[in-house]
Amino acid sequence: MTKDNHRQQFSALANKAYFNYGGQGPLPEPALQAIYEAYKRVQLGGPFSGEVGAWVVQEAMLTRRAIASELAVPAETIALTEDVTVGCNIALWGIDWKAGDHLLLSDCEHPGIVASVMELQRRFNIEVSFCPLAATLNEGSPVQVIADSLQPNTRLLVISHILWNTGQVLPLTEIVNVCHQGYEPPLTPPYQGGGQVLNEPPLTPPWQGGGQVLNEPPLTPPWQGGGQEGLSVNNNKVMVLVDAAQSVGVLPLDLIESGVDFYAFTGHKWWCGPEGLGGLYVSAAALADLHPVFIGWRGIVTDANAKVLGWKAGSQRYEIATSAYPLYAGLRSAIALQHEWGTIEERYAEICRLSKYLWECLSELPDVECLRTSAPEAGLVSFRLTNGMPHKQLVDLLEKQGIMVRTILNPDCVRACVHYFTTEAEIDRLVGAIAIAKFSFE
Amino acid sequence: MTKDNHRQQFSALANKAYFNYGGQGPLPEPALQAIYEAYKRVQLGGPFSGEVGAWVVQEAMLTRRAIASELAVPAETIALTEDVTVGCNIALWGIDWKAGDHLLLSDCEHPGIVASVMELQRRFNIEVSFCPLAATLNEGSPVQVIADSLQPNTRLLVISHILWNTGQVLPLTEIVNVCHQGYEPPLTPPYQGGGQVLNEPPLTPPWQGGGQVLNEPPLTPPWQGGGQEGLSVNNNKVMVLVDAAQSVGVLPLDLIESGVDFYAFTGHKWWCGPEGLGGLYVSAAALADLHPVFIGWRGIVTDANAKVLGWKAGSQRYEIATSAYPLYAGLRSAIALQHEWGTIEERYAEICRLSKYLWECLSELPDVECLRTSAPEAGLVSFRLTNGMPHKQLVDLLEKQGIMVRTILNPDCVRACVHYFTTEAEIDRLVGAIAIAKFSFE
Repeated sequence: MTKDNHRQQFSALANKAYFNYGGQGPLPEPALQAIYEAYKRVQLGGPFSGEVGAWVVQEAMLTRRAIASELAVPAETIALTEDVTVGCNIALWGIDWKAGDHLLLSDCEHPGIVASVMELQRRFNIEVSFCPLAATLNEGSPVQVIADSLQPNTRLLVISHILWNTGQVLPLTEIVNVCHQGYEPPLTPPYQGGGQVLNEPPLTPPWQGGGQVLNEPPLTPPWQGGGQEGLSVNNNKVMVLVDAAQSVGVLPLDLIESGVDFYAFTGHKWWCGPEGLGGLYVSAAALADLHPVFIGWRGIVTDANAKVLGWKAGSQRYEIATSAYPLYAGLRSAIALQHEWGTIEERYAEICRLSKYLWECLSELPDVECLRTSAPEAGLVSFRLTNGMPHKQLVDLLEKQGIMVRTILNPDCVRACVHYFTTEAEIDRLVGAIAIAKFSFE
Repeated sequence: MTKDNHRQQFSALANKAYFNYGGQGPLPEPALQAIYEAYKRVQLGGPFSGEVGAWVVQEAMLTRRAIASELAVPAETIALTEDVTVGCNIALWGIDWKAGDHLLLSDCEHPGIVASVMELQRRFNIEVSFCPLAATLNEGSPVQVIADSLQPNTRLLVISHILWNTGQVLPLTEIVNVCHQGYEPPLTPPYQGGGQVLNEPPLTPPWQGGGQVLNEPPLTPPWQGGGQEGLSVNNNKVMVLVDAAQSVGVLPLDLIESGVDFYAFTGHKWWCGPEGLGGLYVSAAALADLHPVFIGWRGIVTDANAKVLGWKAGSQRYEIATSAYPLYAGLRSAIALQHEWGTIEERYAEICRLSKYLWECLSELPDVECLRTSAPEAGLVSFRLTNGMPHKQLVDLLEKQGIMVRTILNPDCVRACVHYFTTEAEIDRLVGAIAIAKFSFE
């Protein structure tokens, strides 16, 4: 399928140059028709009837399966949610926080998630700190920064797989490994010097013998005394919650292999599904430790007298109640359409090819500075104007010309996103418009 | 507008006799078209653009206003939610529970809400008890039962305005009055007898002087010692959370007058809006005591650097993140259509007229027993078969004939709902089908 033919299925692309995939993807026409047909179908059969009820159960199951297939996980690990933020909140609030527990989050998380963490801090009297990942965009190791930020009382790390502001892709598997290994006391006391170690691989503590141990069961650190408590459980294990708003639909994923505990995502950005439908992956290992918080009939099991018996078996326990079921068909249609164009590996390669082109073109403009000093690793390209023109002014000016980008407030920049179906011609139009924008400012 | 003309706008009514309004209302064709047009509109203008962003804000505001107008409350008291259960959970989890607090709920609440309360009990070590309202369907005073169930440590009562299983309408204002007055120690010690007082009006404690004092500021009970703590605050005040799934779109409402603290509802039942959109009313007085739990960008205020400053001013603070915005136009369209037929008072009167007719017809059938011994107060009519035929079998048999009713598990019965646009002919068809159903059983 040619790109031009493919693009014709997205009505939003007909009248504009679109670069806000990180905000919301355009809904393909077949997905909209699938939604419309689902509404018609519900009315024809019900809406509230045994027949439609069975259809809704089936729709939800097919949708969990379609999502699970993209993440390379079993369908029962997926909970359908209204959006990525709800998914993050399920994980944040579902942990049985005790006063004094430590929650570590990156300094690049979305304000909504930060606000939820601040409220957890107030409510449960936990300790919260931010680790400086923004500074690792062009140099340094985010894995090392995270390792250095862990404390003996750290229970959860909250990061994004792709940072929404700078577009940096974090090495998920390595980060999860470090977190599941847990806090390790510094080997070198600060007064012995040691210098800049951020770029070096994490050190191996002596009791691990130096070999390749990341896949082995966690050892019991000596300070735990070897008692019963430490025999089979790694008490220092830090769980990892990922805000996957910018990675799902972009990166080839294998969540089981990554070892991640909680992975929250949305269908309406890079998958180009309808707004109002996302999900949460909870690993089989983490399920028992994550209590449902907002609870409704979809998550529970009842007996013949409607008495509550307990939770549904898998991550479905985190689903709450009535949702906009007709959207399910829309998301599946949108995901299927992307497969028509190419595999996730092919699409990711095309995204990287195009974002590199955009990054190169922007880097050549005199009054533009890209945040990254090398080509992007995904579809987000963030840049700033160096001529003093307010970024909001540029974004508004571009929108008047039918070119959609957005401002980011922290760091202060403009973000343009390319998807696999973006064209070089669109990119040229964007770059050209930015190049002449300065004349309207100067 | 004649009822026949009005009914033609609901495509679901064309091919069946529909009695499941308490499960989900049929979506009117203009509402579906409004949803479809909203999707088209988003694609034309964005989807993620300054222009569409402003439109979404406007759509949400118009929808809160339309809802607020139906409940006779200011728009800023309304939070839009995915469904009624989410609304209940926002109130349940937003209270700063302390170990030993008491939560009282009726014995007729939906299993999903019961499950959420059970998890609150486990998580915060609170005390939970059920008050026996089911037994007051035909005799006794639910207000007195609630008053008798309050304890000095009770902080929240959870009830439904209309009980979803039996259709009983609870006297909301009286219940809120009793709860806001709070626990009162029994006047007559049990060993002095006293007998059956459930049908009598609540007694007035001596320190209130016997006059009409419900609207006066709460007095300080003597056991609080008159200290500073009790000077201006009624420490015994019990807040009231209402599951309004069955009352919104049925009863004429004045929530301010009722004094209720939290009122959670959905648009997809009696308002006949799309599934996946509901709301929560939080009174101005209760706002400060209810902390947001699931938190996202929609509920917070940030500064120019995206730093979190606090909550939005009103109940919007409880809204989370991206929703299916196109549904907003659908719900407003559905509500507007009901106004075309008549005022809420006229529609409620018609519902009662029709449910009385259904109740009378059912009462005349030999093998049917209505749960109520007098005509229903709303649209829900619950009945049981006395010939031993399983209720599920009857419901399935009726669905095969295009007649939609549902089973209720506790108490074991069948529920048929009438809306204002139900016809006598539909009711006759239902009753006739029930009358001959026994032949397929016996």
